[in-house]
Amino acid sequence: MTGDLHVPVDALRGFIAGALASGGLPEADAETVARLMVAADLLGAEGHGIFRLPRYLARLRAGGFNTRPDIRVIVGKGGLALIDGDNAMGHLVMERAALLAVELARAHGIAWVGTRRSNHAGAAGVYATMVAEAGLAGLYLAVGNANHMAPWGGRELLLSTNPISVAIPAEGHPVLLDMATTVAAYGKVKLAAQRGQTMPEGWMIDAEGKPLTDPALAAGGSLLPIGGPKGFGLSLVFGLLAGTLNGAAFGRDVIDFNADDRTETNTGQAILALDLSILGDSTALQAAVTEVCDDIRQSPLRPGFDAIRIPGDRSLGGRAERQAQGIPLSPGLLTQLDQVAASCSISPLPR
Amino acid sequence: MTGDLHVPVDALRGFIAGALASGGLPEADAETVARLMVAADLLGAEGHGIFRLPRYLARLRAGGFNTRPDIRVIVGKGGLALIDGDNAMGHLVMERAALLAVELARAHGIAWVGTRRSNHAGAAGVYATMVAEAGLAGLYLAVGNANHMAPWGGRELLLSTNPISVAIPAEGHPVLLDMATTVAAYGKVKLAAQRGQTMPEGWMIDAEGKPLTDPALAAGGSLLPIGGPKGFGLSLVFGLLAGTLNGAAFGRDVIDFNADDRTETNTGQAILALDLSILGDSTALQAAVTEVCDDIRQSPLRPGFDAIRIPGDRSLGGRAERQAQGIPLSPGLLTQLDQVAASCSISPLPR
Repeated sequence: MTGDLHVPVDALRGFIAGALASGGLPEADAETVARLMVAADLLGAEGHGIFRLPRYLARLRAGGFNTRPDIRVIVGKGGLALIDGDNAMGHLVMERAALLAVELARAHGIAWVGTRRSNHAGAAGVYATMVAEAGLAGLYLAVGNANHMAPWGGRELLLSTNPISVAIPAEGHPVLLDMATTVAAYGKVKLAAQRGQTMPEGWMIDAEGKPLTDPALAAGGSLLPIGGPKGFGLSLVFGLLAGTLNGAAFGRDVIDFNADDRTETNTGQAILALDLSILGDSTALQAAVTEVCDDIRQSPLRPGFDAIRIPGDRSLGGRAERQAQGIPLSPGLLTQLDQVAASCSISPLPR
Repeated sequence: MTGDLHVPVDALRGFIAGALASGGLPEADAETVARLMVAADLLGAEGHGIFRLPRYLARLRAGGFNTRPDIRVIVGKGGLALIDGDNAMGHLVMERAALLAVELARAHGIAWVGTRRSNHAGAAGVYATMVAEAGLAGLYLAVGNANHMAPWGGRELLLSTNPISVAIPAEGHPVLLDMATTVAAYGKVKLAAQRGQTMPEGWMIDAEGKPLTDPALAAGGSLLPIGGPKGFGLSLVFGLLAGTLNGAAFGRDVIDFNADDRTETNTGQAILALDLSILGDSTALQAAVTEVCDDIRQSPLRPGFDAIRIPGDRSLGGRAERQAQGIPLSPGLLTQLDQVAASCSISPLPR
């Protein structure tokens, strides 16, 4: 956007780590979380990177995170494991889960690692990509951290945007899908409200089921699932797999972590890793994936489109450029981050 | 529908098995396929049960299926296996895959079984349910057997309705999601054409991207994915996971099995099984799943709805009634099946 400042990624990482450390996180953990938050920004997942710092910091200061957690595997068999995050910051729990999934999949062909007592871990795509960059196929599911969606036919907000991310190794960069099961993420609603814009029909409905286009009235309304009952079904089964089966919160017991900085969220996630080198020659399989994607990319356009993009072409395909040019931050976010700097007694981001 | 005849399931099974055996399938295989086709009808998946018999029979007679297949595991490690279906009827391949996934998951916690050189296997939900009724959570992905969808922004039909099915054990019956990644299945388009009805906007677009509502013009058009680019992304990654990584067809090499009865389809599928008894006490986990679902079912309705249904409430929840009352068949389908009976020299379905 016009007016955005591009901040070098090293400066961002240092800033985030400094702020989190001042909030009580041990230095090594602060650096890990900073790296994973900036990894979201590097994918262009602007709602899941440094944008979240003020919120995380508020929870850290309120004692909502355990800063000395014992993140551990509590049960497991073969390729299946369940991690208790001990209420650590979610990034720490999920990096552990993703790395364990890769390790278990290399030993057992396929692995599934669930988490309980985790927290918001930023961009789903960061963890699926971690698996794909180790050469395996990755699939990530999570229970979202606030219920903004009613069940299909209902009006009580019992579901979240429960996302799915799938990453599949290919030549160049992996295919990377990272999507909410709702038409719009709630962050886009908040952004529209901040900018005084109306929302397009199809994002939300009110309690009567009528289209809701004024983001100022969003509080009582529901995000709409993609494909109506289908998206509701996806959100439900992803929530059961990532939450309920792991002993994590889902449904009525989900804590709105934007409204409540203290109560443990008991967030659940799940990550799958598949060692495709067992199915065939890895190089040949990556070439086959690339061929399917290139056929699609190079197929004829329909009017109104300038390109056919494969999931990942913008996020992973744009990562090197973001790395080189820095992460664009809006003036509003910069002001918030200056306040963070002042409250943490750290240097503000460089201009 | 008015005019539908309810046919007892035993009669249906016998009829299908007789027809397939007359087409050259060994008796035991014909009975297995018949059982799995009727299992689709018992779920109310009317487009995937006996409705498919004339098509399967045509392919059988044309030599498009291998009636003496050697269905075998060609590679595997731990919980991961790849089955070569040897161009058998897909039901035979997928039942083998689902049972193997359950067996491997019991040994390794989690299992993933892929298939190549399989064929159309009927309703996705049948195989996910097989896993859930063994007490495990199941997830099934498949490459659809005809490309009816263009990529997002494109006009060439390079993708299918690539479905997902997820089944999770619960009290009563499992949660069962079974959905295409398109707004409407192509079968619904054909049904609208047959009945001379127009389609609602949102099902299909023409090559220019304009809404297509006349099903007679469907041939050049594209089904629309749920959630626009999101559904395209889901269809793509499900196709890569179920097809490309298994060495099966996906993209330009998919054979339209409705138009071509001879060419091997090299269909790919994948099924995951997760032994939830490793994550916790199975009974307690099923109770937790049921509690989340009951909270949703019992939450307040919005206007225009008479109930909130959890995926599976109609399909598995209605199975006992369909079992007792028989499967409803339309007069048009009955006429086709009478022709099948005549051509196979078997008794027609009882009236």
